[in-house]
Amino acid sequence: MQIGLIGLGKMGLNLALNMLDHGHEVIGYARTRSTVDKAAARGVKGAYSLEELVGQLGLPRLIWLMIPAGKTVDEVIEQLLPLLAPGDIIVDGGNSHYRDTLRRYQFLKEKGIRFADSGTSGGMEGARYGACCMVGAGDELFAYLEPLFKDITVPGGYLHTGPPGSGHYVKMVHNGIEYGMMQAIGEGMEVLAKGPFKLDLKAVAGVWRHGSVIRGWLMDLMESALSKDATLENIKDIAYSSGEGLWTVEEALRLKVPAPVITTALLMRYRSEQEESFATKVIAALRHEFGGHDVARK
Amino acid sequence: MQIGLIGLGKMGLNLALNMLDHGHEVIGYARTRSTVDKAAARGVKGAYSLEELVGQLGLPRLIWLMIPAGKTVDEVIEQLLPLLAPGDIIVDGGNSHYRDTLRRYQFLKEKGIRFADSGTSGGMEGARYGACCMVGAGDELFAYLEPLFKDITVPGGYLHTGPPGSGHYVKMVHNGIEYGMMQAIGEGMEVLAKGPFKLDLKAVAGVWRHGSVIRGWLMDLMESALSKDATLENIKDIAYSSGEGLWTVEEALRLKVPAPVITTALLMRYRSEQEESFATKVIAALRHEFGGHDVARK
Amino acid sequence: MQIGLIGLGKMGLNLALNMLDHGHEVIGYARTRSTVDKAAARGVKGAYSLEELVGQLGLPRLIWLMIPAGKTVDEVIEQLLPLLAPGDIIVDGGNSHYRDTLRRYQFLKEKGIRFADSGTSGGMEGARYGACCMVGAGDELFAYLEPLFKDITVPGGYLHTGPPGSGHYVKMVHNGIEYGMMQAIGEGMEVLAKGPFKLDLKAVAGVWRHGSVIRGWLMDLMESALSKDATLENIKDIAYSSGEGLWTVEEALRLKVPAPVITTALLMRYRSEQEESFATKVIAALRHEFGGHDVARK
Amino acid sequence: MQIGLIGLGKMGLNLALNMLDHGHEVIGYARTRSTVDKAAARGVKGAYSLEELVGQLGLPRLIWLMIPAGKTVDEVIEQLLPLLAPGDIIVDGGNSHYRDTLRRYQFLKEKGIRFADSGTSGGMEGARYGACCMVGAGDELFAYLEPLFKDITVPGGYLHTGPPGSGHYVKMVHNGIEYGMMQAIGEGMEVLAKGPFKLDLKAVAGVWRHGSVIRGWLMDLMESALSKDATLENIKDIAYSSGEGLWTVEEALRLKVPAPVITTALLMRYRSEQEESFATKVIAALRHEFGGHDVARK
Repeated sequence: MQIGLIGLGKMGLNLALNMLDHGHEVIGYARTRSTVDKAAARGVKGAYSLEELVGQLGLPRLIWLMIPAGKTVDEVIEQLLPLLAPGDIIVDGGNSHYRDTLRRYQFLKEKGIRFADSGTSGGMEGARYGACCMVGAGDELFAYLEPLFKDITVPGGYLHTGPPGSGHYVKMVHNGIEYGMMQAIGEGMEVLAKGPFKLDLKAVAGVWRHGSVIRGWLMDLMESALSKDATLENIKDIAYSSGEGLWTVEEALRLKVPAPVITTALLMRYRSEQEESFATKVIAALRHEFGGHDVARK
Repeated sequence: MQIGLIGLGKMGLNLALNMLDHGHEVIGYARTRSTVDKAAARGVKGAYSLEELVGQLGLPRLIWLMIPAGKTVDEVIEQLLPLLAPGDIIVDGGNSHYRDTLRRYQFLKEKGIRFADSGTSGGMEGARYGACCMVGAGDELFAYLEPLFKDITVPGGYLHTGPPGSGHYVKMVHNGIEYGMMQAIGEGMEVLAKGPFKLDLKAVAGVWRHGSVIRGWLMDLMESALSKDATLENIKDIAYSSGEGLWTVEEALRLKVPAPVITTALLMRYRSEQEESFATKVIAALRHEFGGHDVARK
Repeated sequence: MQIGLIGLGKMGLNLALNMLDHGHEVIGYARTRSTVDKAAARGVKGAYSLEELVGQLGLPRLIWLMIPAGKTVDEVIEQLLPLLAPGDIIVDGGNSHYRDTLRRYQFLKEKGIRFADSGTSGGMEGARYGACCMVGAGDELFAYLEPLFKDITVPGGYLHTGPPGSGHYVKMVHNGIEYGMMQAIGEGMEVLAKGPFKLDLKAVAGVWRHGSVIRGWLMDLMESALSKDATLENIKDIAYSSGEGLWTVEEALRLKVPAPVITTALLMRYRSEQEESFATKVIAALRHEFGGHDVARK
Repeated sequence: MQIGLIGLGKMGLNLALNMLDHGHEVIGYARTRSTVDKAAARGVKGAYSLEELVGQLGLPRLIWLMIPAGKTVDEVIEQLLPLLAPGDIIVDGGNSHYRDTLRRYQFLKEKGIRFADSGTSGGMEGARYGACCMVGAGDELFAYLEPLFKDITVPGGYLHTGPPGSGHYVKMVHNGIEYGMMQAIGEGMEVLAKGPFKLDLKAVAGVWRHGSVIRGWLMDLMESALSKDATLENIKDIAYSSGEGLWTVEEALRLKVPAPVITTALLMRYRSEQEESFATKVIAALRHEFGGHDVARK
């Protein structure tokens, strides 16, 4: 197929190369000229404006967005609209909030533009060599796009989750689970590191990859990370978060689903970003008040 | 009554003054000579050795321990034993683990020494002007000691909780609840501090003291702390813990009582003591592995 | 003062009686005729329509809303607007979301109507005999209303928290803290109830009311509840929630304030509302898969 | 090798068959005669007493325990001791607490019996076709046993974690991580199940197995469980726990490692076992006290 790919960052470029590997034609656009140049050097047909991108695509045009969630997506869609014709297709392959996706779907439907959402998992490696795609789309559109999804994913690695929005919904929850799993691994690793035995953490992660109950890709990555830095001494203890963990927590709250582990995992990330915890200062101050407990003063 | 008080620290000295206020005679001992001197200057009869302390007490001797929980209590009991006579009484007014108290009670019973435990709450101010005492003791011993407990507590502020050990048990749980409450206050204060309104935190704590659902002594202390340091800028964000919070969590685990709030409050204190969170480093490293996410490097 | 009180439910009626006690004139309206009759029998001047209510008020009219948060407030305001004149005052004394309050303030400002928000704490007893009011309002309006707030609150029990919205904000956080405190008390009580000692829970709550660190109104209520039902055998283990706990959690998430205790308290309430936990079923099913562990089947 | 296997339950029998597949000779003993018969029918040499078991083993005897953790292990060791000779080997392949293992190692060392611990992961399927073994042992003993571990594990699936006790320690933490991961998956699945889209949960678990970040054996099992019961309607929402989750939490507390996710996962299991939550009743009662909130009565 012929794909107009907007966004050639870490994920976008890898996905483009993946598409090229499977015989697709990729016309790529990014805001920064040098980013386009870099992609062009790898086989992507470079476009230096949206007009140029759209101009190179046959009807119905297939445009794949691989850009940051939020306003950027709306802005790009606004800029694309005058350039597109009814029947053209936009796939949002990024991590948009599912409610934005629902809204955009309705908006574009009224303009005659078909819209699908693909939650794309598997990291950069997945984007490059075989991702996992959770696709929300109408049946007809999904059928049309299915060959492409089949090509860019690992075997068994794509699913038509349901109507528009459902792909991003499933991806959101996937990431929520990921937050909980990662925090669990982190906590376990810390117990290992501080426990009574002098353990080779990399070797432990390694053996857990093979035959254990908790084997999986995160454990593969754990071994990989520890093979580069056996004690993680070069990593700062700050865990940032993008939106999906928060959105999963918000969705759980909305549904009154008690999700304490995913929520706690998110809150511990927020805690890690704090230079100073005011809540803790309150506790220290209270302890000092009632017990005359020593309080660490600055 | 005549009380031999061992331990003249923050809590012990205040308790001694409290007892003196109510017409009791207090012979006080502490390991450090100057501590005894200081107490002596306030009306306590100083004793510079356990022998001296015991020697000044009429039969049955009443000895009150106000010393750190753990080994110290066992050591002092060991040193006291040869000096005591059957029928003498030891009251452990400190924060001992209730299982240690049960053990000591059995041990002393075999020696003919009567033993009671008093969980003492109310901080230094309570020790000085009226505490809250949770007393574990046999009925007869409690009846004997009751006038003393009546004197050193606020009206309604003492309870015969049950047999030996029960006083410390109830005090342990009291402190567990305290951990949860303090963390809740801390979190709320932080939301106030970072929220969209420029609030006078001291004034808020002040109004909450009067008529609100969450009014109570912790809120009184909150206003007091903020009146000294309106933004807590001089307090470091480290909240230490003594044993009872942990013990409550351990007891809850033993009983399979889900106590997530008390537990989380404890864990957040531990988190505050960490210079570096290894768990967080693991998460940061994993994020970097799969997503090429920026990781803060040292 | 002359107050037009809309909403004569549990809180509203008590507040009306409180106002009457202090010499204010209360014209009261409620949707249900019999509710108005009941209030009228206690000294409130009954109004059976908003028109009737507004008609009895002198200029500038002072209207106090004591109605459920959400749409109802907007509806009542919409119905009131044609009846009011510039300079009239609406006080929202309910538990509205602070962002709704900000929106309503702007909306009413454009119409020339003055608007204040009062977060009202202290339960029914507080409403009746002395509440705690957190008031968001412009300075001038607050000065005008202050005598009323002084009358209906306990000494020290009202605060001008800041501009409109701030009263509801502070009240929201107050309730969030309350959630955490209540869960902490619940957990502690359960550890007491299941522990090795046969304790009189009512007596324990009673002694904790006097001189302990965790003394406060919630402990007063704890003793009161246990005095009616010593083992709470007649209470079902479901803890509902109104909005403020959730809003505090949402606000904390928005501000990236880690509030794990308040959040967990909320989630445990949600858990208590569940007839069945799907998350737990997943775990049971997984355990069965890997370990052949017995799984409770229906 | 020749292995005397004590315990022929779910894990033990599968492990025996695994050993047989690799050409080892297995003499198997279990307390129940029929259990031995069943194993004998599959190729195990049945022993109907420990004497019979030991009698069939050449020197140095290699005895593998696959029995429930706790007292049973001590009892069996006590019964074995008079039958063994210096240099004989006991491997504890069960889920013993690492501190019991340390104690047993010292005890047996004094008797001249060599002792190793193998944390064995991978469930029944792993035991049968290739497990993951974390082995604590002295270097010499490990070298001696290594060929056996190589045979019964998947490639890469065994590790000499360090000295005795370390195998069970690493396995304990493995299970702690497992608790956190499973709760995260459970929460995510519940958000999917209750969300706005009608999703095929089995299909979602299926796609997540292929290429996603959270792929791994637990997700394989998730799909398998859902393929048997698409909505888990036949599973009761009770998640039991054996010891390792609790031990990981206790160890984390001992080390002051904040492990809120693993801890919360454990507490949610405990919550699921409760017929009634006393903590929740306390909250419901308190709400009723202050707000006159409706309380669900029995």
